[in-house]
Amino acid sequence: MIKIAIDAMGGDFGPEPIIEGLILAIRNNNNFTAIAVGDKEQLSKLIPPTFNDRIEILDTKDVISMHDSATDALKRKESTIYKAIELVKDGKADAVVSAGHSGASMSLATLKIGRLKGVSRPAIATLMPTSENQNTLVLDVGANVDSDAKNLFQFAIMGQAYAQVVLRLDEPIIGLLSNGEEESKGNEVTKEAYKLISKVPNFAGNVEGNDIFKGTVDVVVCDGFVGNILLKTAEGVADTISKIMKKDLKRSLISIAGAVLMRKVFKNLKLKVDYAEYGGAPLLGVKAPVIISHGKSNPKAIKNAIFQAINSASSNLDSVIEQRLEKYLINESSSKEPTL
Amino acid sequence: MIKIAIDAMGGDFGPEPIIEGLILAIRNNNNFTAIAVGDKEQLSKLIPPTFNDRIEILDTKDVISMHDSATDALKRKESTIYKAIELVKDGKADAVVSAGHSGASMSLATLKIGRLKGVSRPAIATLMPTSENQNTLVLDVGANVDSDAKNLFQFAIMGQAYAQVVLRLDEPIIGLLSNGEEESKGNEVTKEAYKLISKVPNFAGNVEGNDIFKGTVDVVVCDGFVGNILLKTAEGVADTISKIMKKDLKRSLISIAGAVLMRKVFKNLKLKVDYAEYGGAPLLGVKAPVIISHGKSNPKAIKNAIFQAINSASSNLDSVIEQRLEKYLINESSSKEPTL
Repeated sequence: MIKIAIDAMGGDFGPEPIIEGLILAIRNNNNFTAIAVGDKEQLSKLIPPTFNDRIEILDTKDVISMHDSATDALKRKESTIYKAIELVKDGKADAVVSAGHSGASMSLATLKIGRLKGVSRPAIATLMPTSENQNTLVLDVGANVDSDAKNLFQFAIMGQAYAQVVLRLDEPIIGLLSNGEEESKGNEVTKEAYKLISKVPNFAGNVEGNDIFKGTVDVVVCDGFVGNILLKTAEGVADTISKIMKKDLKRSLISIAGAVLMRKVFKNLKLKVDYAEYGGAPLLGVKAPVIISHGKSNPKAIKNAIFQAINSASSNLDSVIEQRLEKYLINESSSKEPTL
Repeated sequence: MIKIAIDAMGGDFGPEPIIEGLILAIRNNNNFTAIAVGDKEQLSKLIPPTFNDRIEILDTKDVISMHDSATDALKRKESTIYKAIELVKDGKADAVVSAGHSGASMSLATLKIGRLKGVSRPAIATLMPTSENQNTLVLDVGANVDSDAKNLFQFAIMGQAYAQVVLRLDEPIIGLLSNGEEESKGNEVTKEAYKLISKVPNFAGNVEGNDIFKGTVDVVVCDGFVGNILLKTAEGVADTISKIMKKDLKRSLISIAGAVLMRKVFKNLKLKVDYAEYGGAPLLGVKAPVIISHGKSNPKAIKNAIFQAINSASSNLDSVIEQRLEKYLINESSSKEPTL
């Protein structure tokens, strides 16, 4: 049976939504057990005794906060995220879910659990909604800042493997994020990456920022600096549209009545753009599934993140990635070390 | 009196919206005349004789299409955009407006009109809407792909000068687009740029993608590769939200009734995110105002682009940029030549 280690304290709202999400997951899936890492006194109050056979508590009190640096996290061996990742490293758990400090989760996972053979740098992947009934997997959205062409090539392999093996898409299509569709478009790094990724089947070439939301391709590859900016830009636009509408709404009773009649439409929209539906963002390229959840995750997001971890842990994702990287013979370690 | 050269044929919809926009501008502003560059036979049919004292036609038939390369455009001396830019170069017009091939407009303007003293590479700036009653000027959104720290520094100077002198903002605040607010965030280029821009007054440090739409700062600096991606991402998110809502609307009469009641809210929203309201994107750093309009510009967008050109041409923007660049003593030409 699969065992999930979960950092029960790292989220912005403390242990409540995390444990509530874990209990939701347990109720909906009989095929896993969990180790909740955190303050035993607090956690045991949140876990009904009926779940004692499915949820173990690993008692520890230190929590890495959003204001701590990722390098600090490497030294604080009693922290919830450190302990949760150590469980995976020591073979006591199969996967880890954390809504805590994402830089700390990433650094610790990379150093403690280790990278897959052929992977120079792990990447964070995230699902973005489209207007069609599908999503686009985008990576890297922030694990690395300065990536070279080989890094982007490895992201392409990892993203395609994840889409195929975990998301179960048939022959997922890869696009390389650029400033135009033509092969001649791109900066120095993406132009070089284009050549490397051309060797991979189902590579559709360059795609643009709007293609992510059209669902033109299944996997979009970019460096983590660009990925972070596009993620925040997308959030910003959605927030702004909603704020402008809300402000205007307040000016007229007729508009408010209209909004009431349209509430189903707004609810569906929210569902589609809500990250809670997707769970968390997998860190691809390390030797065990690591799901990085939003700090503000609600119980539903945590439940879905746990399901993602289970899906990854029950797949052969890691060996698929290693085999494919070996096949393309570009699997020698990049000269650049991962930035942590 | 200011004279505007306008490429009357380069837009996606031919000369009609361009000339209609020009006539709108003429009706609303008595302080300029225009030279419409294009096929005299077609254009003269669109211009009522009463405007003959305000609009000259420069007859030429070749039009650079979206499928032509920017380098091709440099050789086609009879094209509308070539002729329009030549008018400015030869001192026969003060500014140019084009809804044609943006790469061609940019390359021709840079080579023919020339760069301001101290500017290594011109940049395209664009206004983005925020939820507050203000806009954010973002540059570069696509003139260059590989920019170094000095280029970004110059973009900061040019953007701040434009916001102050042309948009008439009091002490505009600059932000550097990065993957986090802390000074330690960024890629190699932006970290170096951070140090250079720190010397400029009203520099707020790093900003993130969502800050653009919050109106945290007045001017956001990024390289053209990132700028293009964020622009397309923003467009993509807005389009997708509208598509998802429209699809859901059709499923229910009640929702449709709601949308009818909310039409004022939607109309206001459209107004805020509509590029036609802003006109076009100024190419900053060349020796005369060049406004690059959207290929799909409607008459209103063209009218506003013409007003932008007039505002720039009647300002001392160019000398302000040159003086500030000289003052910061980092105005030696960058080793990198502009990419065209």
